[in-house]
Amino acid sequence: MKKALAIDVGGTKIYNTIINENGEIIAEIEKHSTPKTFAEIKYLFEEIISKYEKEVDVIAFATCGAVNNQNSGILGSTGNIAKEYPTMDFKNLSKKPVFVENDANCAAWAEHVIGASKGMAYSVMLTLGTGVGGGIILDNKLYKGKNGAAGEMHFKMRTDKHRKCTCGSFDCFEAYASGTGLKKTAEEITSNPDITTYDVIENKDRPIMKKVLETWQNDILEGIIGLANIFDPDCIVLSGSMAEFVDIEYLEYEANKEIVTTPFKVVKASAGNYSGMIGAALLAIESLK
Amino acid sequence: MKKALAIDVGGTKIYNTIINENGEIIAEIEKHSTPKTFAEIKYLFEEIISKYEKEVDVIAFATCGAVNNQNSGILGSTGNIAKEYPTMDFKNLSKKPVFVENDANCAAWAEHVIGASKGMAYSVMLTLGTGVGGGIILDNKLYKGKNGAAGEMHFKMRTDKHRKCTCGSFDCFEAYASGTGLKKTAEEITSNPDITTYDVIENKDRPIMKKVLETWQNDILEGIIGLANIFDPDCIVLSGSMAEFVDIEYLEYEANKEIVTTPFKVVKASAGNYSGMIGAALLAIESLK
Repeated sequence: MKKALAIDVGGTKIYNTIINENGEIIAEIEKHSTPKTFAEIKYLFEEIISKYEKEVDVIAFATCGAVNNQNSGILGSTGNIAKEYPTMDFKNLSKKPVFVENDANCAAWAEHVIGASKGMAYSVMLTLGTGVGGGIILDNKLYKGKNGAAGEMHFKMRTDKHRKCTCGSFDCFEAYASGTGLKKTAEEITSNPDITTYDVIENKDRPIMKKVLETWQNDILEGIIGLANIFDPDCIVLSGSMAEFVDIEYLEYEANKEIVTTPFKVVKASAGNYSGMIGAALLAIESLK
Repeated sequence: MKKALAIDVGGTKIYNTIINENGEIIAEIEKHSTPKTFAEIKYLFEEIISKYEKEVDVIAFATCGAVNNQNSGILGSTGNIAKEYPTMDFKNLSKKPVFVENDANCAAWAEHVIGASKGMAYSVMLTLGTGVGGGIILDNKLYKGKNGAAGEMHFKMRTDKHRKCTCGSFDCFEAYASGTGLKKTAEEITSNPDITTYDVIENKDRPIMKKVLETWQNDILEGIIGLANIFDPDCIVLSGSMAEFVDIEYLEYEANKEIVTTPFKVVKASAGNYSGMIGAALLAIESLK
């Protein structure tokens, strides 16, 4: 059975483990703080790879940032990681094949193969965390667009330049549906600039916090309606830490009332916390064929 | 060379002609008012088909309404045409093969094969008319979604239920970017409920009308930004009567400044007024292979 050394690269943490072609984690999960500099990140990759590459058939990176259609490197900038990171020459980190894919795309693929959207040919995954990640599966294939950057959930929720988004533009879905978005919505509704998402969740039975969460969830609903009308998908998968705080059944029911396309499901991700590494490993092993 | 009898079915008019596998119109274009009843529409189809079917290899319908993935019939309701129209048994209208596709999808395909997005693998077409039609080409194939209904440009432009959309929901792109949307925007800005799109266009140098057109165009821009971030396309094609009134170069420049994906073009459709019939014929002839 084929095996991959899976490495998940985020702005804060880097994880690695070994995963087989069934998507099973078959080694310890090692966790590292993401180093500050490009040189240190590269050195950490080299250390991990030299330790495990003999045991595996392929090295599989699930990384922050958009990844090109050759699965060899990063397109453009990637936010909160060393600014030279996009120049990383992944292919030369090992003598074994190296495969790179965006982390949200990997997670969507893991859901498609072993998780909540298994058996469904068309799905869109929204990862609701500090930001919002997107992964699109169309006709049982990962959809990447002309250069590999597709699936960015930066479509507008309003057009009056109300709320700045991390992307530099205004009023993107990410700026409303994310954890950061929930905090901003809470600030606007409570007029308290110091309120945290924790405050909202801890006090979720208080009427004002209820209103905050309903407003936030309604923005997620509106985004889901748009995606369902554009894609006519089998399902929309919600993952990420913030997905704990939405009412999946409500979203499915309400969205299906509004769409002009055909009925679809809204489901919670089920491939677990390491779905990024699992998806990267499954894609990498498939790329060997 | 293979030929198709192409029939374009809209809520107001029905057109027919003969088109060859190069997308060339090789007969007169006949025009009919769309009959009121299902029986009359069916009778008109039978008349057109019996007159021309011997001359062609396939019958190609470009129709209003979403069309299933078997290209044999209509999904759900279709707005301003006889309500039984979706029950039409297209396949049994002729002994020759019959192929059916949504008109906006057909027009997008014509642009892809012989028009403005020729040679580009990834494109999204927006038809700006009384409403907004959408057609999506991904990896050189027409994208239809799980049941065939994809490409509905009903994603939200705001979330405060400000403007009713024809789909029954609120604040869809169609309700802002269409000709009807321009009229609504003009009503809101001028406080004149009787203003028409004609009044706006005729007086487009007056400051208030300039503001109306800029607001309308900005809504189109915001929609284009979202689609480019979702799809990472080669281009977005604008077609339809209202596309005459947008500044294509401005839209391309401004959208490319805002996106987080990779640079893309905004182009005006060039396959002409009968692109629906041309696309239907090209798809129908291809389906014979």
